[in-house]
Amino acid sequence: MEEQSIQMNLCSTRKEKPDSDQLEFGKIFTDHMFIMDYSDEKGWHDARITPYEPLRLDPSAMIFHYGQSVFEGLKAYLTSEGKVQLFRPEKNMQRLNRSNNRLCIPPIDEEFALQAIKQLVAVEKDWIPRAEGTSLYIRPFIISTEPYLGVAPSSHYQFIVILSPVGAYYKEGINPVKIAVENQYVRAVLGGTGEAKTGGNYASSLKAQEMVADQGFAQVLWLDGVEKKYIEEVGSMNVFFKINGEVVTPALNGSILEGVTRNSVIKLLKHWNVPIVERKISMEELAKANKDGTLEEAFGAGTAAVISPIGQLTWNDEDFVINHGKTGKIAKRLYDTLTGIQYGKESDPFDWIVEVEEVEQLVR
Amino acid sequence: MEEQSIQMNLCSTRKEKPDSDQLEFGKIFTDHMFIMDYSDEKGWHDARITPYEPLRLDPSAMIFHYGQSVFEGLKAYLTSEGKVQLFRPEKNMQRLNRSNNRLCIPPIDEEFALQAIKQLVAVEKDWIPRAEGTSLYIRPFIISTEPYLGVAPSSHYQFIVILSPVGAYYKEGINPVKIAVENQYVRAVLGGTGEAKTGGNYASSLKAQEMVADQGFAQVLWLDGVEKKYIEEVGSMNVFFKINGEVVTPALNGSILEGVTRNSVIKLLKHWNVPIVERKISMEELAKANKDGTLEEAFGAGTAAVISPIGQLTWNDEDFVINHGKTGKIAKRLYDTLTGIQYGKESDPFDWIVEVEEVEQLVR
Repeated sequence: MEEQSIQMNLCSTRKEKPDSDQLEFGKIFTDHMFIMDYSDEKGWHDARITPYEPLRLDPSAMIFHYGQSVFEGLKAYLTSEGKVQLFRPEKNMQRLNRSNNRLCIPPIDEEFALQAIKQLVAVEKDWIPRAEGTSLYIRPFIISTEPYLGVAPSSHYQFIVILSPVGAYYKEGINPVKIAVENQYVRAVLGGTGEAKTGGNYASSLKAQEMVADQGFAQVLWLDGVEKKYIEEVGSMNVFFKINGEVVTPALNGSILEGVTRNSVIKLLKHWNVPIVERKISMEELAKANKDGTLEEAFGAGTAAVISPIGQLTWNDEDFVINHGKTGKIAKRLYDTLTGIQYGKESDPFDWIVEVEEVEQLVR
Repeated sequence: MEEQSIQMNLCSTRKEKPDSDQLEFGKIFTDHMFIMDYSDEKGWHDARITPYEPLRLDPSAMIFHYGQSVFEGLKAYLTSEGKVQLFRPEKNMQRLNRSNNRLCIPPIDEEFALQAIKQLVAVEKDWIPRAEGTSLYIRPFIISTEPYLGVAPSSHYQFIVILSPVGAYYKEGINPVKIAVENQYVRAVLGGTGEAKTGGNYASSLKAQEMVADQGFAQVLWLDGVEKKYIEEVGSMNVFFKINGEVVTPALNGSILEGVTRNSVIKLLKHWNVPIVERKISMEELAKANKDGTLEEAFGAGTAAVISPIGQLTWNDEDFVINHGKTGKIAKRLYDTLTGIQYGKESDPFDWIVEVEEVEQLVR
């Protein structure tokens, strides 16, 4: 792709900002968005920051029919000194391109896309909420836009970035949830799209989620699609267990999404000399560990919650109450450290933070 | 759902119709479309036939992120007497609701949706091409439109029907294709969305299709996601084999789409007293039948091609040439009979045809 610049078309008036104590997730959007077009002839082109407004798409646009799309999710954090920070955003850009590959979507220039995100966040700096635990959620996504009903990769795409100020995930402090092990529905299978961040994986997960929500569970624990024996993910997070002093997480196997938080948890645990292994874990092993008292902690890891402790796991009719239903020590330490780094309160031993400079420096 | 009527807002000028000998699939659309909205408060409402025009959707509309969508595909045929015919459209409406159920989309009123399709086709009657083998393709689809980034069923949807005049699938007569057995990628697995007609299934199929197309194959033959042993579908069609005088098709198992053409093929074969069974079929069984000379025919069945004979099947490095690479007798007879019924040239023993009345009778 040739070097390109970002056209700026800013609003003359701005929307009123919401109260940062009252924020929900993903319902309010900022004044501007980033868009870039792709055609087979021109490649990615016409990068621009424009007012946030509806997309106009032909009813035959492929995204409405064949689901060819990918997305990412990350956050911008405001430090107490007024700095704007991103957390390992290059990992999201790398994964976006891995997802693109699986979905037959042309790759983006990762550095340019990250530059676009930084520039958009800088333009919208005043939208980053200040209250404890709040942030500006960043949603890059690519949709197939060719007006054609043939089942084939689209010849046209749009790469779009939108921003949403989001509230603290834990309004009353980090808190364990109840999870149901899903035996009927499957999230993904080897040879499918489980490794990619694409709409279809989320669409297919809704049914299981809907069924367990009625029974008071926060999420489902997904098992492998082949044997329904091995643990894959929890809801839309990666999952970790502490068994007899060792932290275990399912190894990446082609159907598990490679989470940025998952990778960060593994790096931190190694840094702390806490034993951590990536391998297959079966429900039977977990049941045995629960029975003999060696299942010490369980938690999910993802961008939205950072760390989500699991207080109870229900498998068929069996309830595993983990760490007396309380947040475990490792989960708490990971949560405090990760959020500490993200909000600039803790040192950043791995150079994970990418600072967003002032808009004047970005817009040339 | 309460009884509702369809508001009519017709164009004052019409587009020029394409040459019916030059038509491709799914690239040209008619003057009007049908739309109906859904909200949790109002249910399905505001049914209308309006000019065909771009949809305006918020960039955060769920369809762009989480793929919650379903669709159908059927055709309107013009008979030599000028009648407009649909083929078993009630089956498509039933399947649409089964897909809706799997994707957590509220059900539609099947009779009302079919009435809407008939009314739209009647309005666009002049768009139905007249050349041999051509038809008006009908694409009903439902998309999730709530502007919200939470992973949850949408609270807003649109049900839309668009129409596209399409050319003959076989420009030079029914013709066998070469198919590659897919060993790496998987279309669907039990517990996933394989039974539903939803975008994600098609998005995930693109990669395998792209890889075999480079090697000169028309489509892939999908194997089951668990053992990669049993045959599921071919491309986006159901598949049939004639082995030693008996026709065999994979039994519906939760990951195979229940095709309307599949069902019609089974009914016709029974009517003709041709042995037909629905059961598991492994690639090993097929290889054995190929070796001992009992693999007599193979063909796909779907709305687009009706019947698509398979002349060669390649499994790993082994090529099975079927019926000397020629269209088999059963495939030909099914193709002639099904298209004969669809175009009103053959009698319709099962009452499969639904006639579309003149627009004056439909618009009250």
